[in-house]
Amino acid sequence: MPIAKQAREPNKQEKGSGVKVVITGGAGFVGLRLAEALMQRGQLTAPGGSQEPIDSLLLFDVNEPAERPSWADERVVFQSGDIADAQTVAALIDRDDISVFHLASVVSGGGELDFDLAMRVNLHGGLNVFEACRARDSLPRVVFASSIAVFGGAGMPAVVGDHVKQTPQTTYGMTKTICELMVNDYTRKGFFDGRSARLPTVIVRPGKPNQAASSFVSGLFREPLNGEVCRIPVAPETVMPVLGYRSIVGGFIALHEAEGDSLGDDRAVSLPSFTVSVEEMVAALRRVAGNRHLGDIVFEPDPFIEAICATWPQDASYERATALGLPRDASLDVIVENYIEDYL
Amino acid sequence: MPIAKQAREPNKQEKGSGVKVVITGGAGFVGLRLAEALMQRGQLTAPGGSQEPIDSLLLFDVNEPAERPSWADERVVFQSGDIADAQTVAALIDRDDISVFHLASVVSGGGELDFDLAMRVNLHGGLNVFEACRARDSLPRVVFASSIAVFGGAGMPAVVGDHVKQTPQTTYGMTKTICELMVNDYTRKGFFDGRSARLPTVIVRPGKPNQAASSFVSGLFREPLNGEVCRIPVAPETVMPVLGYRSIVGGFIALHEAEGDSLGDDRAVSLPSFTVSVEEMVAALRRVAGNRHLGDIVFEPDPFIEAICATWPQDASYERATALGLPRDASLDVIVENYIEDYL
Repeated sequence: MPIAKQAREPNKQEKGSGVKVVITGGAGFVGLRLAEALMQRGQLTAPGGSQEPIDSLLLFDVNEPAERPSWADERVVFQSGDIADAQTVAALIDRDDISVFHLASVVSGGGELDFDLAMRVNLHGGLNVFEACRARDSLPRVVFASSIAVFGGAGMPAVVGDHVKQTPQTTYGMTKTICELMVNDYTRKGFFDGRSARLPTVIVRPGKPNQAASSFVSGLFREPLNGEVCRIPVAPETVMPVLGYRSIVGGFIALHEAEGDSLGDDRAVSLPSFTVSVEEMVAALRRVAGNRHLGDIVFEPDPFIEAICATWPQDASYERATALGLPRDASLDVIVENYIEDYL
Repeated sequence: MPIAKQAREPNKQEKGSGVKVVITGGAGFVGLRLAEALMQRGQLTAPGGSQEPIDSLLLFDVNEPAERPSWADERVVFQSGDIADAQTVAALIDRDDISVFHLASVVSGGGELDFDLAMRVNLHGGLNVFEACRARDSLPRVVFASSIAVFGGAGMPAVVGDHVKQTPQTTYGMTKTICELMVNDYTRKGFFDGRSARLPTVIVRPGKPNQAASSFVSGLFREPLNGEVCRIPVAPETVMPVLGYRSIVGGFIALHEAEGDSLGDDRAVSLPSFTVSVEEMVAALRRVAGNRHLGDIVFEPDPFIEAICATWPQDASYERATALGLPRDASLDVIVENYIEDYL
């Protein structure tokens, strides 16, 4: 039904001399990595279709980061606030020559513990972002961070691809699916030019564990490399698709830059991934660590985490992502090497 | 993830001496037919699991019906109001021994014309109903009226079954999919005991055409039988799944009465249907009408309606519905005969 879109598009063409970028969840690990990559890149496709220099980068999150990153020049603004407040969000998206990466989210474990917060942040927060983009007189490109947690349930096949029915078994996955549906429909209606990137488990996150049920997957690399004990709440043979943060960030940017027509009427794309078991991840860590001292790795099953992980896909295909040129790390070992290079 | 559900269920068992039924969209054609069938049946499974007499039937809609139906005894209350107002909806669902049939909805064509109204009524209205049921100290059974318009898009297979990915191509279908996802998650969390019935095109609706893109499908029977000219906005070979209103109503009640465990973690079930072309429907009309005078049937393609219909499934399978014992009319001819018996 391209009727509404055709009626609106003629008003939605303009050229600017620069583009503003908004990243929600911009003070989180992935948000900061994405911001740094965008600053290095320096330009993005603006709503008119031309490459424009990034003249403003707004990182919105519930809190500002503890310290200002070294790469953050005068174009970079941090702002804290509530994504569930429509007026706050509308004020972030205050130019027509703009692109939005919507990463703000309650994570999987957090969403199971606080349903209302997940609905407030993930569903109503998403709606606020989408409505603010719709209100512009342009067709902003919007990249939404979804998750392979949109898949799940008794009917889930062994390998999930972009064609698989979404029957999520967490509130997190449910709200991510809803936002994917809204991205598709707002795009179909010509309200903005949306894309959803479905993330596998992101490794290796630095810093502290978070409420994501998959938090331990980064911990099993991070804590031993820090000489600390790592307690793994699932069995060694637990399998899941993972991807390194460099490819995650590269995937966000490549999906932003892709031609809308190449995405068709389903704007949600599962990023490439590696399907590996926990014990394979531990083996990769030992290979890459070489002579480094590693903290102990202890298996201590946690039924709450195991129950959530059991609902997730064990293997994912990513033909569309590959066709779109979205990046995949060379190997699991390279992902661990990148982490050591970037953070140790 | 049955953890939250198990924690909550012990508080959610009770026995009452009767059950209240709320039908949103209760003054519409299907809502009124459902109400009449429930009055005839007289009882329903209450939250505690026992069959209880229906002691109160509240029909909520944007308007009250023009006249009070003959079957509406003193137990039946009509109330008009705004489904998008949370307080209004909470006040409808004011007992723990309650069942809710959530039929209120902006229809397909209306949703394409007024996006904001579709979001307001279908998404936020649905949320209000689901939150009001969650607020009860019981596990009310909730039957949500979804639609096969949840399916669509370039990736849609020739036959859509319950396992098919939902990539709707109307705002109506998008909001219906979102409500199905919420019904699943609210049920998983133990907030209520939900079921979604995916309706094919309902025939034969009496009265006037409405803003549903499929409105002409009832019109092609109704108008000729009234001796009026019928203008069909699509080609004679246009194919779609249809079902008679008696089976639709029977399907709602059977789905309400089904054991929750028999539905599994995907509570959305496509109702049975007949896949027929417009010309086959016209042929059935002529067979059943016999010697009756029929108004002329004229094909006048309308690109707006054709574009919406083109996004819908042409054929639907319904194995789960059959296994659950949901009814299917004996034939297309019987559907037309029922309409003549009930309305002419």
